[in-house]
Amino acid sequence: MKKLKRSERLVDITQKFLYNPHKLMPLSFFAARYQSAKSSISEDIAIVNELIKNEGIGELITLPGANGGVKFIPTISKTEAEKGMQKLYELLSNGERLLPGGYLYMSDILGHPEWIKYIGKMFASAFANQKIDTIITVETKGIPLAYATASYLNIPVVIVRRDSKVTEGSVVTINYVSGSTKRIQTMSLARRALKEGSNVLIIDDFMKAGGTINGMVALVQEFNANLKGIGVFVEVDGAQERLVEDYVSLAKLSEVDEKNKEIKLERGNFFN
Amino acid sequence: MKKLKRSERLVDITQKFLYNPHKLMPLSFFAARYQSAKSSISEDIAIVNELIKNEGIGELITLPGANGGVKFIPTISKTEAEKGMQKLYELLSNGERLLPGGYLYMSDILGHPEWIKYIGKMFASAFANQKIDTIITVETKGIPLAYATASYLNIPVVIVRRDSKVTEGSVVTINYVSGSTKRIQTMSLARRALKEGSNVLIIDDFMKAGGTINGMVALVQEFNANLKGIGVFVEVDGAQERLVEDYVSLAKLSEVDEKNKEIKLERGNFFN
Repeated sequence: MKKLKRSERLVDITQKFLYNPHKLMPLSFFAARYQSAKSSISEDIAIVNELIKNEGIGELITLPGANGGVKFIPTISKTEAEKGMQKLYELLSNGERLLPGGYLYMSDILGHPEWIKYIGKMFASAFANQKIDTIITVETKGIPLAYATASYLNIPVVIVRRDSKVTEGSVVTINYVSGSTKRIQTMSLARRALKEGSNVLIIDDFMKAGGTINGMVALVQEFNANLKGIGVFVEVDGAQERLVEDYVSLAKLSEVDEKNKEIKLERGNFFN
Repeated sequence: MKKLKRSERLVDITQKFLYNPHKLMPLSFFAARYQSAKSSISEDIAIVNELIKNEGIGELITLPGANGGVKFIPTISKTEAEKGMQKLYELLSNGERLLPGGYLYMSDILGHPEWIKYIGKMFASAFANQKIDTIITVETKGIPLAYATASYLNIPVVIVRRDSKVTEGSVVTINYVSGSTKRIQTMSLARRALKEGSNVLIIDDFMKAGGTINGMVALVQEFNANLKGIGVFVEVDGAQERLVEDYVSLAKLSEVDEKNKEIKLERGNFFN
């Protein structure tokens, strides 16, 4: 790279950090890249950090020492989180979304790039300090949320399948009991998908009694991995005997009136 | 926002564009945001554009006139595309990936945030000028590629299901014939998922004879939407009677030797 002016360095540093969240970048990397003194780079980074913090999109963390460097930790400010969630509650509480069985039609929200990024950023914020190695989700609707979260944490995703597929190679299959319907169901994960001892975060879109998530917890144990957290987008409040105890939810479906097509949503425990 | 110095404006402009690809932003938006003259903003934008172009990550396009503004179009430079693909070919041609039936284990690559972003950027580059409204994919492995592409094009994704689910509400279901196995299969899309007249891009991870993609083409027609493009990550070369004619592929599986566990990959037609 040719020698850059400060103005050009700032643009380049910004794009490097935004495109590589949670990645440690040594000052020497930037110093060599721009043929500049480390002291100048430090000043650049201070300017970038100030802006990023003021905008509420995250923070640059400096780790000292020979193996040190700077990391961009994307987070969402409380104000942004509240503002976005308020809009989401309005969208979600539209009675037209109500489906038989107390489910909600959410595919439009889960297909929308801005909502997906927003939800991903909230989960990435909530679990930023948990040293997660891998996100695990089950097909199908949790997948976009898992990937959005993973893109802010810069870690891989593994997808649990409802039935075993030829394209997964050999799999580990478990049976679990659906919490709501009490039926026995099956889920599989490719044997080579998850390393022993890895730190895992479970992400899903919807939780009633928690049977599906409970199944994923059992799979994580089956692979001798460590469960570090569970994030669900919408939980159903007051579900009889919740199978899962410790989780982060963004929204809580507190009332569903199928007859009058009325839905009431509250804040999830993310906001507690 | 308080009045910013040029250095701070540059950081902020960079993050605004990178986080909002394909979104038209009027100069007046920035002028008001920074309490600065439009002429200063134009200079800022020229600096950002120069850097972004040199880095090969895209381009800022200026549209003149009262409804004009500036848009960030993410693209991938030819050099970057070639470099990344070379690494991917090496990864993919590992004989351990070979599964019965000539399929490849690709879930690790499709779960990796950097590869996903890279593949998404390639598709977003290839279809940047097609005025796509919506990306359509079928569960499960195409989903991350569809969302990655959508995040660079800043448009929504709809997911076709293999079987109809209560959480989708009423659906349109079609039968299609699998090109390889000649079996009749089913796919469904929620009635409210796709608007009539919308411009659609199909994204999938793997194409043998093309039966699944052909099914999605039929669904797009069923919704009176316009098919604007098809992108597949890996196509199998020399598949007997290809059902799909016009598509963009990134890689071509040219030889599979199941006995000796040997795989040969070539460039897809993206590079032609």
